[in-house]
Amino acid sequence: MKVLITGFDPFGGDTVNPAYEAVKLIPNEVAGAQIIKIEIPTVFEESAKVLEASMKEHQPDIVICVGQAGGRSAVSFERVAINLAEARIPDNKGNQPIGVKLEEDGETAYFTSLPIKAMMKNVQDHGLPAYISYTAGTFVCNDIMYRLLYMIDKEFSGVKGGFIHVPFEPTQVIDRPVGTPSMPIQTIADSLIYAVEAAVTTEVDIEENTGTTH
Amino acid sequence: MKVLITGFDPFGGDTVNPAYEAVKLIPNEVAGAQIIKIEIPTVFEESAKVLEASMKEHQPDIVICVGQAGGRSAVSFERVAINLAEARIPDNKGNQPIGVKLEEDGETAYFTSLPIKAMMKNVQDHGLPAYISYTAGTFVCNDIMYRLLYMIDKEFSGVKGGFIHVPFEPTQVIDRPVGTPSMPIQTIADSLIYAVEAAVTTEVDIEENTGTTH
Amino acid sequence: MKVLITGFDPFGGDTVNPAYEAVKLIPNEVAGAQIIKIEIPTVFEESAKVLEASMKEHQPDIVICVGQAGGRSAVSFERVAINLAEARIPDNKGNQPIGVKLEEDGETAYFTSLPIKAMMKNVQDHGLPAYISYTAGTFVCNDIMYRLLYMIDKEFSGVKGGFIHVPFEPTQVIDRPVGTPSMPIQTIADSLIYAVEAAVTTEVDIEENTGTTH
Amino acid sequence: MKVLITGFDPFGGDTVNPAYEAVKLIPNEVAGAQIIKIEIPTVFEESAKVLEASMKEHQPDIVICVGQAGGRSAVSFERVAINLAEARIPDNKGNQPIGVKLEEDGETAYFTSLPIKAMMKNVQDHGLPAYISYTAGTFVCNDIMYRLLYMIDKEFSGVKGGFIHVPFEPTQVIDRPVGTPSMPIQTIADSLIYAVEAAVTTEVDIEENTGTTH
Repeated sequence: MKVLITGFDPFGGDTVNPAYEAVKLIPNEVAGAQIIKIEIPTVFEESAKVLEASMKEHQPDIVICVGQAGGRSAVSFERVAINLAEARIPDNKGNQPIGVKLEEDGETAYFTSLPIKAMMKNVQDHGLPAYISYTAGTFVCNDIMYRLLYMIDKEFSGVKGGFIHVPFEPTQVIDRPVGTPSMPIQTIADSLIYAVEAAVTTEVDIEENTGTTH
Repeated sequence: MKVLITGFDPFGGDTVNPAYEAVKLIPNEVAGAQIIKIEIPTVFEESAKVLEASMKEHQPDIVICVGQAGGRSAVSFERVAINLAEARIPDNKGNQPIGVKLEEDGETAYFTSLPIKAMMKNVQDHGLPAYISYTAGTFVCNDIMYRLLYMIDKEFSGVKGGFIHVPFEPTQVIDRPVGTPSMPIQTIADSLIYAVEAAVTTEVDIEENTGTTH
Repeated sequence: MKVLITGFDPFGGDTVNPAYEAVKLIPNEVAGAQIIKIEIPTVFEESAKVLEASMKEHQPDIVICVGQAGGRSAVSFERVAINLAEARIPDNKGNQPIGVKLEEDGETAYFTSLPIKAMMKNVQDHGLPAYISYTAGTFVCNDIMYRLLYMIDKEFSGVKGGFIHVPFEPTQVIDRPVGTPSMPIQTIADSLIYAVEAAVTTEVDIEENTGTTH
Repeated sequence: MKVLITGFDPFGGDTVNPAYEAVKLIPNEVAGAQIIKIEIPTVFEESAKVLEASMKEHQPDIVICVGQAGGRSAVSFERVAINLAEARIPDNKGNQPIGVKLEEDGETAYFTSLPIKAMMKNVQDHGLPAYISYTAGTFVCNDIMYRLLYMIDKEFSGVKGGFIHVPFEPTQVIDRPVGTPSMPIQTIADSLIYAVEAAVTTEVDIEENTGTTH
């Protein structure tokens, strides 16, 4: 089994992006699966082109994109990506789309196909916090997650894909407002490793399709 | 023009729901439009049945559902509703769905058709905070927003619909953790009135379709 | 009985200070006591000179200073002021003391002599949030509270004095980070009125001197 | 040179206290100084008796007490301790004092005698967040800091003393509200080591006695 993991380069004035720094620390093999790690640019659409080329080259079974969510306190697993770009700040090529669809012929949203509850549980079972998030925002993190799931829908049938947000790492918060959470890069990497482990070994996600709304 | 506005009844141990308390304070006419106000139950699916009956009776041009988002500090306009129910607590009839689709034949998500940026701007122009939110959660607030937009898609073509989240009102936070924000019911009502005013008078929302992602 | 209440003028880039705006809305008589309201400058030490002159002129029984604590969500009653100035930003005359004692011959700290638990309870009993704070910071709010209690100790024996922090008012948070709490000026004023009412009518504060540390 | 460092035992329902867990990881020698580490009970006054016995036995030059401040995101250095106990929850022997003085003949407050700005700077210079706090609360953390400085004032002249608050460690926040910050115990320990290093090597603290209030 092959797992492709991406991390963004630094953006928005920071000189480091904990996403790729942590991705780099993941071993080349996790739970018997081969791990391929690539850095992608914090640029709308362009990051998806880099990802697409890598998916064509490596033919992964699982694709996990990782990005920074400054202000969050733990690794969080995104449930859904939406067909919308709204950028408060420019990306690394100066694009700042407002109210723009990502793909004209795409669904309004795509749910992740990763077993995110099993992944969250495996992180927690190893003593680290983790949670499910229901918004990946409207910047390049949502963009790459949306386009990944769009590409899976259109041309990479059967691939499981999704997105993980990670906190600031400690040096980033020294000069930020008191109270801004951070997580050491090794702790982020450990969280990602436990997440990958569950992604590789889980056939059917936990807790789904229980209860009813009526 | 007719505007139908709904507010939920109290839930989760609270004896008041600022949503309907504020809705009640909206005048029967705003910007020349007739305002119809109804309370709906904090119950998955059932609230949508009450809403559907009211939409059939009144044939509104605009439908705005209002709910409480405890912990938020200002009125927030939801951009998107997703086809998913995940309840941390039971609703008012004991339903607690986990990982359940709301409508089998519905889209993964629907975007609001309300001019929410114009609505937000009109609230701010009157000196009150407001913002756009990209997650309505996965409880009954998302449920009613999703089903409203689903019903508009299937049987009420042309109706504009969406959802507004409001903060706790002051009595609710006296015994909650220090730092939990609140907003007086009259201030929430004022925010809603400015929002309705913009919804009624705005043909095309502001700031959309500008920029590009590539 | 006479109550002297002060509020600071705007500082730090804001064009309004909710402290004095709310103080102005307090009636000239509360619970039978005469209320004297003055605005004081957001300047280290100078504000205390203005206060001292007013105390000499009016001979109040109670002095309550009010200031803004941006980011707090409710009216908070300060328990203690410390003999220290540390300014992250300059005051309105450009002073920015770091690690400076306020009064060479003053105590390390003074506790408020106001019945703050009764004051807090009266605000809460009227449906508004309120809490006790154990730090007034190290800027001009702590400065005026410290110097007030120092002056009471040295030359205004028997006067009761203390400090109340109030949240931002709504216009101040429109362009601040999402989630920053605010409170309408009238709601702040109502909180202050209930606080003054309890200050005037309470002989002995509640809940004190109970329990033991051993 | 001898440095005595204390950490509290678990309290309030938690099975671990990151304070002593981190203290245990500090080496027995830092910057040439001998480090003595003891666990003290989370009990008002009693913890000070344990500390006093240890101070008599070891005759340290520096005493640093360490405690947990759940919800804080970084190691924080306390500037001041106040002569007041107010316990929201019982300590580990069931004491829950409200409005009680810690020492009848003590000052209203004591400032730390540690070079906390140099200590904070050394932590930050090693890439970890840290800040100065102006309230140690009113529970056992403030109690031990106050009594330490009281004992230094009365019987251990010349000893430098103070208090450091540390965040939750990761397992403690798994079931706490999303957003609650944590820090791995090794990262907390690293922060403490850098702090101790600066405490041992700093003659005069930085940035003090600059500026003026008038």
